[in-house]
Amino acid sequence: MSERRRGALVSERILEKPKPTNPVLVCGLPGSGYVGKLAADHLIGEFKLERVAEYQSAAFPPQVSVKEDGTVDPPKGELYFGAPEKGQELFVFTADAQPTTSEGEYELSDAVVRFAKKCGVRRVYTLAAYITGSFSNSPRVYGSGTSKEVNEMLAEKGVVLMKDGGISGMNGLLIGVAALRGLEGACLLGETSGYVVDAGASKAVLELLSKVVGLPIDTSRLREKAEETQKVISQLQALAEQSREAAPQSGREQRPGYIG
Amino acid sequence: MSERRRGALVSERILEKPKPTNPVLVCGLPGSGYVGKLAADHLIGEFKLERVAEYQSAAFPPQVSVKEDGTVDPPKGELYFGAPEKGQELFVFTADAQPTTSEGEYELSDAVVRFAKKCGVRRVYTLAAYITGSFSNSPRVYGSGTSKEVNEMLAEKGVVLMKDGGISGMNGLLIGVAALRGLEGACLLGETSGYVVDAGASKAVLELLSKVVGLPIDTSRLREKAEETQKVISQLQALAEQSREAAPQSGREQRPGYIG
Amino acid sequence: MSERRRGALVSERILEKPKPTNPVLVCGLPGSGYVGKLAADHLIGEFKLERVAEYQSAAFPPQVSVKEDGTVDPPKGELYFGAPEKGQELFVFTADAQPTTSEGEYELSDAVVRFAKKCGVRRVYTLAAYITGSFSNSPRVYGSGTSKEVNEMLAEKGVVLMKDGGISGMNGLLIGVAALRGLEGACLLGETSGYVVDAGASKAVLELLSKVVGLPIDTSRLREKAEETQKVISQLQALAEQSREAAPQSGREQRPGYIG
Amino acid sequence: MSERRRGALVSERILEKPKPTNPVLVCGLPGSGYVGKLAADHLIGEFKLERVAEYQSAAFPPQVSVKEDGTVDPPKGELYFGAPEKGQELFVFTADAQPTTSEGEYELSDAVVRFAKKCGVRRVYTLAAYITGSFSNSPRVYGSGTSKEVNEMLAEKGVVLMKDGGISGMNGLLIGVAALRGLEGACLLGETSGYVVDAGASKAVLELLSKVVGLPIDTSRLREKAEETQKVISQLQALAEQSREAAPQSGREQRPGYIG
Repeated sequence: MSERRRGALVSERILEKPKPTNPVLVCGLPGSGYVGKLAADHLIGEFKLERVAEYQSAAFPPQVSVKEDGTVDPPKGELYFGAPEKGQELFVFTADAQPTTSEGEYELSDAVVRFAKKCGVRRVYTLAAYITGSFSNSPRVYGSGTSKEVNEMLAEKGVVLMKDGGISGMNGLLIGVAALRGLEGACLLGETSGYVVDAGASKAVLELLSKVVGLPIDTSRLREKAEETQKVISQLQALAEQSREAAPQSGREQRPGYIG
Repeated sequence: MSERRRGALVSERILEKPKPTNPVLVCGLPGSGYVGKLAADHLIGEFKLERVAEYQSAAFPPQVSVKEDGTVDPPKGELYFGAPEKGQELFVFTADAQPTTSEGEYELSDAVVRFAKKCGVRRVYTLAAYITGSFSNSPRVYGSGTSKEVNEMLAEKGVVLMKDGGISGMNGLLIGVAALRGLEGACLLGETSGYVVDAGASKAVLELLSKVVGLPIDTSRLREKAEETQKVISQLQALAEQSREAAPQSGREQRPGYIG
Repeated sequence: MSERRRGALVSERILEKPKPTNPVLVCGLPGSGYVGKLAADHLIGEFKLERVAEYQSAAFPPQVSVKEDGTVDPPKGELYFGAPEKGQELFVFTADAQPTTSEGEYELSDAVVRFAKKCGVRRVYTLAAYITGSFSNSPRVYGSGTSKEVNEMLAEKGVVLMKDGGISGMNGLLIGVAALRGLEGACLLGETSGYVVDAGASKAVLELLSKVVGLPIDTSRLREKAEETQKVISQLQALAEQSREAAPQSGREQRPGYIG
Repeated sequence: MSERRRGALVSERILEKPKPTNPVLVCGLPGSGYVGKLAADHLIGEFKLERVAEYQSAAFPPQVSVKEDGTVDPPKGELYFGAPEKGQELFVFTADAQPTTSEGEYELSDAVVRFAKKCGVRRVYTLAAYITGSFSNSPRVYGSGTSKEVNEMLAEKGVVLMKDGGISGMNGLLIGVAALRGLEGACLLGETSGYVVDAGASKAVLELLSKVVGLPIDTSRLREKAEETQKVISQLQALAEQSREAAPQSGREQRPGYIG
């Protein structure tokens, strides 16, 4: 096991260095509708992937969260690996939160992409939300890749290619950084209202990912996971509401310049 | 006495390095209802603890405060130590304010935890507020620990274990960083409205801490201290109000550039 | 080709180092009404300038944008060079976005000015917007230079000299940094309402720049470019609106302190 | 002349190193009512002090301002020195703006205090505003020092000692940092509404400073200077208003996440 700094804010703890032959990296971090996070967690659970690296960042929100087992944990990024099927090697990266500064997001993206590249990854996919503000029963999946070739492949699989706009946060940046490091990749965005944890959008995104990487993915257990997540988030937001009214603790915007 | 950098923002000034046999570290920083800060200050005064280390951070709010003796002081973190009773060794960490950035909170937490660990600390408790938005005459104490064993112990002592949610700011982060450094710990949160300096919540938290660490704590002088604190804060907030209305140079964070 | 750090946040990738005899540097970055960005892009296209350096910054907004060819790209700064006419050597610097922090803007400005100086640049012009809040059919061009001599020259060419006020963001800072590095320069600001992408203001600024540097500039294709840009921005803003209501992904202001 | 880094953000350019026998340092930076800035500028002009050091910071607002002579200048800090009368040696520090981050304010304060200490300064006074929100014809001067001895001296001279509250921004922090570096000092705060550039408050502060350091100060030219300043600020605020409504350039809160 090795631990090292990966920039001013990030440290990387490698638990195990896999030597796959032709792996892909799939990333899903918390964002609108938790579409990407939900999908990434599903892949980790469904394929029983193993944790191979952990990322701390001083740019993560300064707090701890209460895990399902009732113990506390600081926010971290985690990289998982496994081989769901013969010749199918999969890295999945997710995190408890997104860094709170641009610098933090760039450093974390760079650390993950560099380690994945060292492990032989040539293609990176991120899973995110395409916010429409309205609900849809058959959510489309939008996408954009790092090259025209990638875009053509995406279109064949049924992805609606984006013509303009942007993808903000780690789910977008990771693809940008992958491109800067000479990797190919694409972002797949599931159509969502953005108002709730959207298992439907995650399902749509995973079904397309399944076609894109040629890996069957059973999404039947996705909905219950989404319901749990929704419950947790509602509670968090309720707490946040309250503290926002009264509490320095709710963050520095609220914190008086000086506390006696 | 030694002074050294502990990251990009923090410097540590060690006045004395205690060599206790089995000390605990208790932390309480300014936050909602000043529950943690009030409790930490009470422990320092009640047990006449001695200052053993001082922390400066360039992430503290850039200002000075007027102390009780009328002189000015920049914000700082302070670590105290003492042995209230035979076989009872206690470190207490508090600060005048919380750092204003994530990086600042991570660096300060790390510096304190590392020094405490060097001094033999194996268990860290932070005292904080559990905001309900409503007033309570018999405030409950919520909590969450770094392991199931810690949680079981907390439950035995009467702590209501948290099932979800998060603890933000230094009072939460210090436990997270302690866990990363291989220490055990827990956060004890006193139920409070979050609207006022809450001596009742501090009292409840201290009474539970007393059971948890097996140390009798007289909380009779807590209420008057709370009243002073409330007075000071009201004045500070009144001033802040005014300058928020008037300060031309009020700056991008809406933090008044200047408070007279 | 060489790549190197230019500060804590910026890295510079030099594709080619021109050796002109008496070049000028013109800068236009995204700002009010996109006056400067639109004008810079026009110069690059009109004179078929070649890309000679690329700038990455961890202070750029953490995201990717979808380019006209449908592929994604992270924000970057780009320096172009060419010789539109005999004895007319022109560097143009533009970027997809402005850095999100003061430090980021200072570092990027310094990196660009230092490289330009190495290439023999002695005079720097930035193109920006002078916001009036009302629409004008014959927009005036305001300006301010680094010396009285420059100001006299500007006045002769028809620039309305600024008597007070300030120019914020990279379009102002680049001139300030140029002065610190011993270069001369001026900022030319086209009168604009600030409400829309303003091809009229860009045209007015380019016509004055044309007189100032003695280089004929055909602005006939400017308006269509402005219309495309307006379309893209409207879509971006619509998306931003939606996500602002619901989405962590739209930026850290919206992102809950903790995401489960 | 020497130039060097003084931290991650600050660089110091020393034009001349005075060797006085018993100098004091007086600081006044822009803040509420420009009380401190106005007073510092008055001292520089009245005693024809010479510029001995200049400070750049990447934490200053990223912009340039138009000076009275119509040329542009980036924000900077400036240290002046002179000997108004025999045995009266005076350093004055002021700046065009305050740094926009805590780290920036700490680094700049530290750089100035360290250089002043090297030049033999043992006592530092900052001039600031005490905001009451209401207008006063005979503004009082509040104050707080780094020791009881200083406070006693201040009281003798007619300063109203502060009992609580805080002084935020550089005008407060500089005293705090001076204390950390082993210097004595005090902050003098002129009672002001905080709504306008307040020559009356600056006059009151200068009259008390005059008694404290035993140096006669003619304040007759103060009012006209205040009127100019007020005019400039009103224009700046008008511009700021407009751009706040419409303009990315007005700062990152307004700047869309991505600009095409």
